[in-house]
Amino acid sequence: MFYRKITAEEAASLIKNDDVISLSGFTATGCPKAITRALAARAEVEHVRGNPLKVGLCTGASTGESVDGVLSRVNAIKFRTPYQSNVDSRKALNDHDIHYFDLHISELAQYLRYGFLPKPDYAILEVCDITESGKIVLTSAVGVAPTIAHLADKIIIEFNRYHPRELVGMHDIYEPIDPPYRKEIPIYSVSDRIGVPYVQIDPRKVMGIVETDLPNEICSFTPLDKLTEQIGKNTADFLHGEIKIGRIPLSFLPIQSGVGNVANAVLEAMALNKEIPAFEIYTEVIQDAVIGLMKKGRVKFASGCSLSLTTPVLNEVYAELSFFKQKFLLRPQEISNNPEIIRRLGLISINTALEADIFGNINSTHIAGTRMMNGIGGSGDFCRNAYLSIFTTPSTAKGGKISSIVPMVSHVDHSEHSVKVLITEHGVADLRGLSPIQRAETIISNCVDDQYKDVLWRYLKLGQRGHTPQNIDVALSFHDAFNKTGDMRNVQW
Amino acid sequence: MFYRKITAEEAASLIKNDDVISLSGFTATGCPKAITRALAARAEVEHVRGNPLKVGLCTGASTGESVDGVLSRVNAIKFRTPYQSNVDSRKALNDHDIHYFDLHISELAQYLRYGFLPKPDYAILEVCDITESGKIVLTSAVGVAPTIAHLADKIIIEFNRYHPRELVGMHDIYEPIDPPYRKEIPIYSVSDRIGVPYVQIDPRKVMGIVETDLPNEICSFTPLDKLTEQIGKNTADFLHGEIKIGRIPLSFLPIQSGVGNVANAVLEAMALNKEIPAFEIYTEVIQDAVIGLMKKGRVKFASGCSLSLTTPVLNEVYAELSFFKQKFLLRPQEISNNPEIIRRLGLISINTALEADIFGNINSTHIAGTRMMNGIGGSGDFCRNAYLSIFTTPSTAKGGKISSIVPMVSHVDHSEHSVKVLITEHGVADLRGLSPIQRAETIISNCVDDQYKDVLWRYLKLGQRGHTPQNIDVALSFHDAFNKTGDMRNVQW
Repeated sequence: MFYRKITAEEAASLIKNDDVISLSGFTATGCPKAITRALAARAEVEHVRGNPLKVGLCTGASTGESVDGVLSRVNAIKFRTPYQSNVDSRKALNDHDIHYFDLHISELAQYLRYGFLPKPDYAILEVCDITESGKIVLTSAVGVAPTIAHLADKIIIEFNRYHPRELVGMHDIYEPIDPPYRKEIPIYSVSDRIGVPYVQIDPRKVMGIVETDLPNEICSFTPLDKLTEQIGKNTADFLHGEIKIGRIPLSFLPIQSGVGNVANAVLEAMALNKEIPAFEIYTEVIQDAVIGLMKKGRVKFASGCSLSLTTPVLNEVYAELSFFKQKFLLRPQEISNNPEIIRRLGLISINTALEADIFGNINSTHIAGTRMMNGIGGSGDFCRNAYLSIFTTPSTAKGGKISSIVPMVSHVDHSEHSVKVLITEHGVADLRGLSPIQRAETIISNCVDDQYKDVLWRYLKLGQRGHTPQNIDVALSFHDAFNKTGDMRNVQW
Repeated sequence: MFYRKITAEEAASLIKNDDVISLSGFTATGCPKAITRALAARAEVEHVRGNPLKVGLCTGASTGESVDGVLSRVNAIKFRTPYQSNVDSRKALNDHDIHYFDLHISELAQYLRYGFLPKPDYAILEVCDITESGKIVLTSAVGVAPTIAHLADKIIIEFNRYHPRELVGMHDIYEPIDPPYRKEIPIYSVSDRIGVPYVQIDPRKVMGIVETDLPNEICSFTPLDKLTEQIGKNTADFLHGEIKIGRIPLSFLPIQSGVGNVANAVLEAMALNKEIPAFEIYTEVIQDAVIGLMKKGRVKFASGCSLSLTTPVLNEVYAELSFFKQKFLLRPQEISNNPEIIRRLGLISINTALEADIFGNINSTHIAGTRMMNGIGGSGDFCRNAYLSIFTTPSTAKGGKISSIVPMVSHVDHSEHSVKVLITEHGVADLRGLSPIQRAETIISNCVDDQYKDVLWRYLKLGQRGHTPQNIDVALSFHDAFNKTGDMRNVQW
């Protein structure tokens, strides 16, 4: 091979304290794994010796155990952006051991290019193929790889044999020119191909190649239950109704669907509702549910940033790669989440709220206003620019101790202006054209759990004068009750 | 004339209770005035007789005394969207006499077309010319006129002789096709012309023409003072620094500037700083300051949705129309505020915050969390999609009784993710890449007034565990103190 073969340990030894490392991948798929594990092992040793070794870490989105997990447990991350979902990194950033910069997924690449974020010293890229002239084929995700590959002065390759070389052609790599010279991004339908199937790197920047054979680290979701199925059904019924009324075209529109259990339930329910035509997906994360629906012919095409599939399902895709290569495109996150494309294609965006309030604001990130869960991810890119933006949530959590619908969310990620429809297992609140007081009445009537209806009606009567009748005195009292007693039902005024 | 000439009273008599009327114009410029005044007079009479007469009112943005003023004083508005700034309509919507749907300015036209908002029964359009074949030339604003002109079944024209027919050519009228057939919006530089200079209407829909000769109703701003000048200077110095560092291209980027005194001060200061090249403006509202800067050669071109100029300055423009017609384009608000264009052109957006918090969230709309000031307007369209998004605010209001920077904003319109730089008269907080605790330290150090520094440092120490160390118990205590004592300095824990 044209490139120098090195071990993961040799690769890790190149990285110095305070370096910024940037990785391919998006969610726990397509990320390098061996070098970051070796780096964590090295950091542990150095820290015992009293030597500092902490890096800035920039990835497409979240990663898996082999990146955020091992590195945050040995306290080797100084700065982190743009997203994470690992239990140990979550703890570290909530303890301020990691400085975490939460960012809209679509903005990362351009913020790096504009110099708004630290320049990456290293790009570490997982590939399934590489040529002498520096054409690399990524694996099961794109993320921010094209941008870090040309910004970083040094590149290390993880050549992961787990992924077949035949993946070539599944990626559509395109990087826009920056203002003042930027042109349109020429995607006019979900399956439009606008770039090339490889990332071009400068071969002279490659410090070495580490060979691996490691599966992705995607966890499976808990199976659907009656509650998530009901949320899915409510959403599908609502969309069906919108088609009938003519507010969604008969030919339907592309779907963006968030990550997780509720999102899967929504897709399954949409597929079951035969009044909804077979549909296309334009999203960031392609999950297990999509594969089954493709086989059934209910999903026609999926454009995303990553195949975030569990190992058995990814293996299924790889076993029938020639079929699935006609069904997928993997794009850089700057394109999968691009406002221009989202608005042009007219996506129906369906995302999960951590918490909503009766006036229609959404908290996607913070537990009780202080503790970061994961990050905003792509939810803001999609909901703000969608044709129609829907948020779903179970009406309660922790066996009823938490109402997902409160007087005032403890942190706002999506303001009332971005939230058109709110759906729980109890029903649908269509907020379009409603004033705050009308929104509150609709949400309490249709979406709130019975255990919390009375108290929220009472809250509304306490409202101080104004367009949005909050009561500033007790607006956060649900959270206060939860912090102090572990149960929002103990709220008192 | 081909069309039937009618009086304003005759026109107003056509409108029935519960009708939705939609108007041309954007701010108190380009709006019809005579028919709405006649409608208000009629509503007053009908209400005395015990007959209901209330309409839904949809305009480009705010209007003037002759629309929101007169109609809200006689309680003739039932529903209002997307923006207002009139003292009487503000009172009415805060009292829930008007149901107000606050909306991103860029979304109005497509929401009307998608059927997400009530279909307008009437479009009332102020024009400076009209042909037999239904080509109309708008006056000093475009707003949502092209969309309401084809959606409404009935059109009434206010032919306002105040505006010269020679305005033809200043407007660039373009309406995108809706998904799934939408294409790119082909603007690649601020002065690109993509449409036609007229709005095409169906002449058969014209119920009549009311002739008027009425000036716009734009109020002048208070003159700059030392404080606003200092905010302007801080902003200009910051931008100059960004050019020097290379984070803004040497050729500079187009400026979007919000409405009001501080916005004017920023433009003036940028024009004074000769290290900043002469620049272009891509914005929604073109204000007085721009005209002076054009004459000085500091502003090269301005694309907007309205000429929101005071009467003397508008007269100046009309007196030299052939010069200024080369310098302006007026576009529909769907285009002036379009996310695709804002991101492609790479705007530097500068908007004014009503209130900011130490973690970088912005309140643009609600006083003390409940009382609507104006509305979100275009601030969200611009700040979310800008190359670089700056918010400015004086550090205090009401002689120090209000700190514009609080622990937690009482309403979030722009989340931390959209706010890159915060500037007060005291200094600049560059928030890019910072975690919440780092942002808080930077904002308190650089932007907060001395009177509030200690209390905000103390607040930060009270923070509950987490990424964003709010203290939910007392997060809104500044507002509570203000509600109870009229002075945030009385905050106590």
